Amino acid sequence: MADIRILVTGGTLDKEYNQLDGELVFTKTHLTDILTQAKCTVDVAIETVMLKDSLHMVDADRELILERVLAAPEDKVVVTHGTDTMPETARLIGPRANGKTVVLVGAMVPYSFVNSDALFNLGCAFSAAQLLAPGAYITMNGKVFASDNVRKNRQKGEFETLD
Amino acid sequence: MADIRILVTGGTLDKEYNQLDGELVFTKTHLTDILTQAKCTVDVAIETVMLKDSLHMVDADRELILERVLAAPEDKVVVTHGTDTMPETARLIGPRANGKTVVLVGAMVPYSFVNSDALFNLGCAFSAAQLLAPGAYITMNGKVFASDNVRKNRQKGEFETLD
Amino acid sequence: MADIRILVTGGTLDKEYNQLDGELVFTKTHLTDILTQAKCTVDVAIETVMLKDSLHMVDADRELILERVLAAPEDKVVVTHGTDTMPETARLIGPRANGKTVVLVGAMVPYSFVNSDALFNLGCAFSAAQLLAPGAYITMNGKVFASDNVRKNRQKGEFETLD
Amino acid sequence: MADIRILVTGGTLDKEYNQLDGELVFTKTHLTDILTQAKCTVDVAIETVMLKDSLHMVDADRELILERVLAAPEDKVVVTHGTDTMPETARLIGPRANGKTVVLVGAMVPYSFVNSDALFNLGCAFSAAQLLAPGAYITMNGKVFASDNVRKNRQKGEFETLD
Repeated sequence: MADIRILVTGGTLDKEYNQLDGELVFTKTHLTDILTQAKCTVDVAIETVMLKDSLHMVDADRELILERVLAAPEDKVVVTHGTDTMPETARLIGPRANGKTVVLVGAMVPYSFVNSDALFNLGCAFSAAQLLAPGAYITMNGKVFASDNVRKNRQKGEFETLD
Repeated sequence: MADIRILVTGGTLDKEYNQLDGELVFTKTHLTDILTQAKCTVDVAIETVMLKDSLHMVDADRELILERVLAAPEDKVVVTHGTDTMPETARLIGPRANGKTVVLVGAMVPYSFVNSDALFNLGCAFSAAQLLAPGAYITMNGKVFASDNVRKNRQKGEFETLD
Repeated sequence: MADIRILVTGGTLDKEYNQLDGELVFTKTHLTDILTQAKCTVDVAIETVMLKDSLHMVDADRELILERVLAAPEDKVVVTHGTDTMPETARLIGPRANGKTVVLVGAMVPYSFVNSDALFNLGCAFSAAQLLAPGAYITMNGKVFASDNVRKNRQKGEFETLD
Repeated sequence: MADIRILVTGGTLDKEYNQLDGELVFTKTHLTDILTQAKCTVDVAIETVMLKDSLHMVDADRELILERVLAAPEDKVVVTHGTDTMPETARLIGPRANGKTVVLVGAMVPYSFVNSDALFNLGCAFSAAQLLAPGAYITMNGKVFASDNVRKNRQKGEFETLD
């Protein structure tokens, strides 16, 4: 059993540039590369659940993510996720987290870009997963949000509380 | 008053390459650039206390850092610091943190390098500063260390607990 | 009068990530940033003619590029251009270059990505513009192609001679 | 036989950060990584002659580089070299190039840094090696210098002609 399980679901964080057609696509997760660059020594298990743009996620996708959270042997789970519907998945997991601390996190700019926020956000998620009480949370923009009090402001491209 | 004060003291994180002599030097802190890349929306005050390699810090430097911690109007303080003597400064601040949550953080590879761990580490520090009880801590390698139970293993270039 | 005129027309080289909608878009050219990073001391004039994906270029666009080539006070002209129809524009300019050395160049991966080929390709173009006889050329993949003997192999994402 | 031989001699271009002691060191050449990023399809042979800071090169080092130039089966040779004494090595090779086109090139900022000029300079060298008449040359700062009319201006960190 690892200390933290990372459930990869896709999102901007893992998108890369396909030089043949000029589109941003998913080919694989970059989490191993990211944690190597981060010199992370936490014992981590990485599990790719799906590689999806969160705009394309349907209810069955969110149920599958919840299922993988609950199936994890670890108590601390980081879920990488597209930003557009991250709050929706967090709200699903929150009341059913069953004693686990689940932190959803993503990026506004892919890891493969020069100016990505992926590493910073993932750092926020790692501390949060280790320090927070059971429940579901989002770490974006340097802040920690409870799953029942967060939305993405799409005009600003930033996360904020509901009130 | 900001939500988090960042006290900059130097260390590998802020070193840059001087192309005229090929040496790594300090010219200024990169914290503003880093927080912009991170899309951080936390209200932050950045204060440069010194720009030193932590191997060159003397007792007076550590006392000055503690003084600036205590003078901060904010309760949450992140101190960027060279890794070599970071545990020593944390041990000084720990028992004298006076109700503040102080998180020391640095990098093994400068922010100006392609493969820097600076953003990840700083993300860890931001969550930790917001979530931990008063006291002094170190966030490195994805882990959170209490100030009285941490050392740098210089052979491995990693932080670990004493026991 | 500068030594080299750069006519910017768009293409992958100048595309950036729009974090609000996740699309690759044009906002401005990065040529000044690129030449600063390159520590280029050649006297350069940068002129943005258009910012287009070359798949969307029509005949009038190519005529406009030719017109700006011929209007340039400089004898050496570098044209940044999307790769998909770069050979077509080169073929138009070649026979009408009117004593100027014109080098078309682009990138398979945008400058804003970690692993961009933009800087290398532009370096190739700079030497070529200074060393070649009048006419039109393409520098891609480390090679120098004459305007009448080059095509893009879209399966490989590479430039090659016709024979 | 390749089309271009690259003789690696060290210099800033290939320096990397040693995170254990904070020093810039040589461990291996990055030329293969650089040419992969550059999407270079030229047939290239890479030969590491030495990995030295050019300030530490002695006459025997320069003679060895010349010897490897002359031993190359290829007519086009790119020599990666530290910038500080690059003109000195170019002057040695120039009159003894024996029908080969030899282009010396380096970087002011290591390839492993975010803002390196290595890719641009190497692109300049590749075109120059393919287009120039036999002799020795330097490509730095976007310019092409003959081996008998070039010096490094150390105050500016730039290459310039003697006159």
